[in-house]
Amino acid sequence: MKLLEERIREEGRVLSEDILKVDSFLNHMVDPELMGKIGKEFAGYFKDRGITKVLTLEASGITSALFTAKELGVPMIFAKKAGSSNIGKDVYHATVHSFTYDKDFEICVFKDYLTEHDTVLIIDDFLAEGSACFGMADLCRQASAKIAGIGVCIEKGFENGGKKLRDQGYDVLSLAIVDAMSQEEITFRTQPEQDQNPR
Amino acid sequence: MKLLEERIREEGRVLSEDILKVDSFLNHMVDPELMGKIGKEFAGYFKDRGITKVLTLEASGITSALFTAKELGVPMIFAKKAGSSNIGKDVYHATVHSFTYDKDFEICVFKDYLTEHDTVLIIDDFLAEGSACFGMADLCRQASAKIAGIGVCIEKGFENGGKKLRDQGYDVLSLAIVDAMSQEEITFRTQPEQDQNPR
Repeated sequence: MKLLEERIREEGRVLSEDILKVDSFLNHMVDPELMGKIGKEFAGYFKDRGITKVLTLEASGITSALFTAKELGVPMIFAKKAGSSNIGKDVYHATVHSFTYDKDFEICVFKDYLTEHDTVLIIDDFLAEGSACFGMADLCRQASAKIAGIGVCIEKGFENGGKKLRDQGYDVLSLAIVDAMSQEEITFRTQPEQDQNPR
Repeated sequence: MKLLEERIREEGRVLSEDILKVDSFLNHMVDPELMGKIGKEFAGYFKDRGITKVLTLEASGITSALFTAKELGVPMIFAKKAGSSNIGKDVYHATVHSFTYDKDFEICVFKDYLTEHDTVLIIDDFLAEGSACFGMADLCRQASAKIAGIGVCIEKGFENGGKKLRDQGYDVLSLAIVDAMSQEEITFRTQPEQDQNPR
């Protein structure tokens, strides 16, 4: 998605070899217009998969997931980080490892909202090692829900998450794949979809 | 907002005298259509205030704040709970007390995104004792930003937050005010706006 790549080039700040800050438009201050277009992009790609729910993880996945769900006309669920809510005991749990903070945390979804009748689109803002996506996929597996695909705004192509997910058969759409980054330059992967159907 | 009141009556679960669960459409599973209408409602009420930013608190304020910001054509900022992010040191901090968990937590906003040139609309999903709203107002005060008003989806009218905020001069729009609730019945306050201009 050229619009997102341009925005990353303009406003993204590379703080270290694996930290890219995009908090001026994506995950602290948020540009609702851009998120609306991101939602349309995800919905356009996954629209014929019979999706019944969009699943993301609080907090920064919520904005893109919400617009995607609105476009698809289905509910959006944000998995909660355990302890963040008086959510009760009737939940599916999974463990996610944060490489940024080097710690594990639990995520959960109330069992009533994710069932064997659901076909789920998983959405997140970033994909690096893939731990959050695997955690959400695990919640779906526990619920016997089908996974239609995974949409992420920014994939760090130099980390392993995207490859691992695709190797396991997931259809992963990343709107921007960063293959290399430094304070001087950010290099995006050329994607077939973009060549055939310019965004 | 009649639509929201109806949804609360249909799907809200009163777990105790002060816990109302609305996680089937508002703060775990989310109905994007309803949130879109909530955004329009807030934007319609506050549209002539010269608002430059919509401010909320992660995670469950994000959905209504995002649609409000989209309607107003301005960025949305979600204040982070401290420790939740590698957000750096250049932040404004405030302390918020959670009565649900009976503990304090820190919220923060990156200084670059909230300045003396901003006129801010504060949005949240729930208003009970008002601690989150006062915390966000404190962030604005530190930034010398003007506060245009406060919009909340559901106010617990039997707690003190709404009164305290209004007594301090804030223009608070609550789309549904619960004056009393039990497992049998939820009683909403009749609001002048709804009489004059049915939603």
